[in-house]
Amino acid sequence: MATIHADQNVTTQINVFEVDPKNQDELARLLIEAVELVSAMPGWISASVHKSLDGTRVTNYAQATDYPAWEAIVERLRSNGYFERFQKLAKPNPCMYRCIYSRSSD
Amino acid sequence: MATIHADQNVTTQINVFEVDPKNQDELARLLIEAVELVSAMPGWISASVHKSLDGTRVTNYAQATDYPAWEAIVERLRSNGYFERFQKLAKPNPCMYRCIYSRSSD
Repeated sequence: MATIHADQNVTTQINVFEVDPKNQDELARLLIEAVELVSAMPGWISASVHKSLDGTRVTNYAQATDYPAWEAIVERLRSNGYFERFQKLAKPNPCMYRCIYSRSSD
Repeated sequence: MATIHADQNVTTQINVFEVDPKNQDELARLLIEAVELVSAMPGWISASVHKSLDGTRVTNYAQATDYPAWEAIVERLRSNGYFERFQKLAKPNPCMYRCIYSRSSD
């Protein structure tokens, strides 16, 4: 389970991968494998992998404590060949965010 | 606060709005106003509004119990003119998802 808060010291990356539906499951598995590689790194907070209902996207919602922590996580993934493997399967579209508002019915 | 779980009976919409940086704050405010309008509706679970650090996107991470609940929420927003107002400010790119994996350091 991950949590979303506003106004926290959290750096969020939302990465929308466009994918051929025949590769959606393989991409989701690869993303989960990548998360397992980095989840013990300093500053890593969470990752949540989502499959689109239409089959054409996989989106990862990931959190780290700050941008330098995120850069180290990215470098670990890159040096282990994950970026190359992602790009063989799909078109990534990452962006860094700050959550400014979160409301829930709970 | 919102929570992300895998394998729940939750329908997630992730909507990435592309926006001119000069309109990013206004779009974020409009999204929050829209959330307040629908947050008491049946099946609504959460919404979390994110501003990209580079100013070019606003992304809403929203959850409902099921797709019919989500359709009713969308219709309420449409009939109150929010879709028209969003499109005057930005280019929405919504997609419906199921979360299949979530891991956190907590």
